[in-house]
Amino acid sequence: MAKDNEIISLKNVIEDNLPSISIDIAIFGFHENHLRILLLKNKDKESWTLPGGFIGKEESLEEAANRLLFSRTGLNNIFLQQFHAFGDPERTRINKRAELLKEQYAKDQYAQEFIEWVLGRFITIGFYALVEFTEVEPKHDIFTIECRWHDVQDLPLLVSDHQSIIETALKTLRQQLNYQPIGLSLLPHEFTMPELQRLYETLLGKTLDRRNFQRKMLSYKILERLPTKRKGGAYKAPYLYRFDKESYEEALQNGLKDLW
Amino acid sequence: MAKDNEIISLKNVIEDNLPSISIDIAIFGFHENHLRILLLKNKDKESWTLPGGFIGKEESLEEAANRLLFSRTGLNNIFLQQFHAFGDPERTRINKRAELLKEQYAKDQYAQEFIEWVLGRFITIGFYALVEFTEVEPKHDIFTIECRWHDVQDLPLLVSDHQSIIETALKTLRQQLNYQPIGLSLLPHEFTMPELQRLYETLLGKTLDRRNFQRKMLSYKILERLPTKRKGGAYKAPYLYRFDKESYEEALQNGLKDLW
Repeated sequence: MAKDNEIISLKNVIEDNLPSISIDIAIFGFHENHLRILLLKNKDKESWTLPGGFIGKEESLEEAANRLLFSRTGLNNIFLQQFHAFGDPERTRINKRAELLKEQYAKDQYAQEFIEWVLGRFITIGFYALVEFTEVEPKHDIFTIECRWHDVQDLPLLVSDHQSIIETALKTLRQQLNYQPIGLSLLPHEFTMPELQRLYETLLGKTLDRRNFQRKMLSYKILERLPTKRKGGAYKAPYLYRFDKESYEEALQNGLKDLW
Repeated sequence: MAKDNEIISLKNVIEDNLPSISIDIAIFGFHENHLRILLLKNKDKESWTLPGGFIGKEESLEEAANRLLFSRTGLNNIFLQQFHAFGDPERTRINKRAELLKEQYAKDQYAQEFIEWVLGRFITIGFYALVEFTEVEPKHDIFTIECRWHDVQDLPLLVSDHQSIIETALKTLRQQLNYQPIGLSLLPHEFTMPELQRLYETLLGKTLDRRNFQRKMLSYKILERLPTKRKGGAYKAPYLYRFDKESYEEALQNGLKDLW
């Protein structure tokens, strides 16, 4: 009875969610010194889309974003932050979805109503999430055919304003480096100072001076140096660090030290 | 024919705007070393509300926010920035507006439809604006009886989640001091270093060291020192400064110097 379920869910999408407003999530992971983002491939087989969806009539924005994040990654309790609402009146009109949806739901009695609803004007609230790359099990949804990581330096064709949503998410991340700590969910549990620097350099898209970086990072007092050094390698073994969870959380709430 | 106009406008509110989504604006001004915010007094004669309104079906978020800002302040081309969307499912349900609206529109044929529309769940997108206090001519709207400035340290009773919207706006402003310039629309054209420091201290809610403040502000390279000093007063005449418009705009776009 898969068909019946699809009919019911199509009807439910309209009945159970708020009209005109959606959520899109830029899910970032850091792997082998590259910043990656999770994208879904559309049924047109050429364009990609950010994971996203609608807001239940009784759901808060954060509940909806967490539900959508879980459904694409299998992860819970993830660093997830709202960053901007996108509301250009034309943003959802420029796409080929009408034809594809008509095809997909040709025999569904709610198809027409659903297509009008979903292709109307939507304002979308952008969230970004920082996840541990290795823990994610990407899953696509019923409107897409694939879900996988892409290097942010090499993005594929994106629908609507999703390119601009990703750029704004990255800009926000870069600004937040100046008042909030970052890295807890992007790096392994233990890391070296050069590994932490590489994360910052990747996010900022520029190289940083090694000594200044170390001095500034240590001044934040969110790092704990471990008694053991990283073993192996031809060079002097580097110190291992981990984030001090308590100071990290405090800095996340109240800002880094040495700010205004 | 004022009555007819009101009937038409009530119907038009529903027909011309997006459902479920609104805008609220925290309009800040700086006067006599106090940070003030523009609020509207509700018809219940006891609670106050942020200026706000709906988004036209063909309007972008920024166009709607600018229109609403102009209608309350008479000002155009103001520093206006989106900062957060507020979407608690209960946020618009906790108020006395139903009774007051029924009274206000007792004889209006669209009253019932309008009341249901306006008292349904709304997600609101928060903007903040920084305005020159002396240039504002506060104007209330048809749902309120007064519009005036309040000290942010001494806020009156506010409806719904407006207290929390103001607190989030202030928190955002404080964070942005760490990567963006501020002051161009809050201070007079020419000002002294102590006056600029007082603005920062008021926004941050704490006192700052005079020499560190001056050193840090000058390092941003957005200030121009004028050849004339402030005259009058018993003490040594302080230097006058103004913002260098070009560097200020550049810092607003790309961030202050000396960031990550």
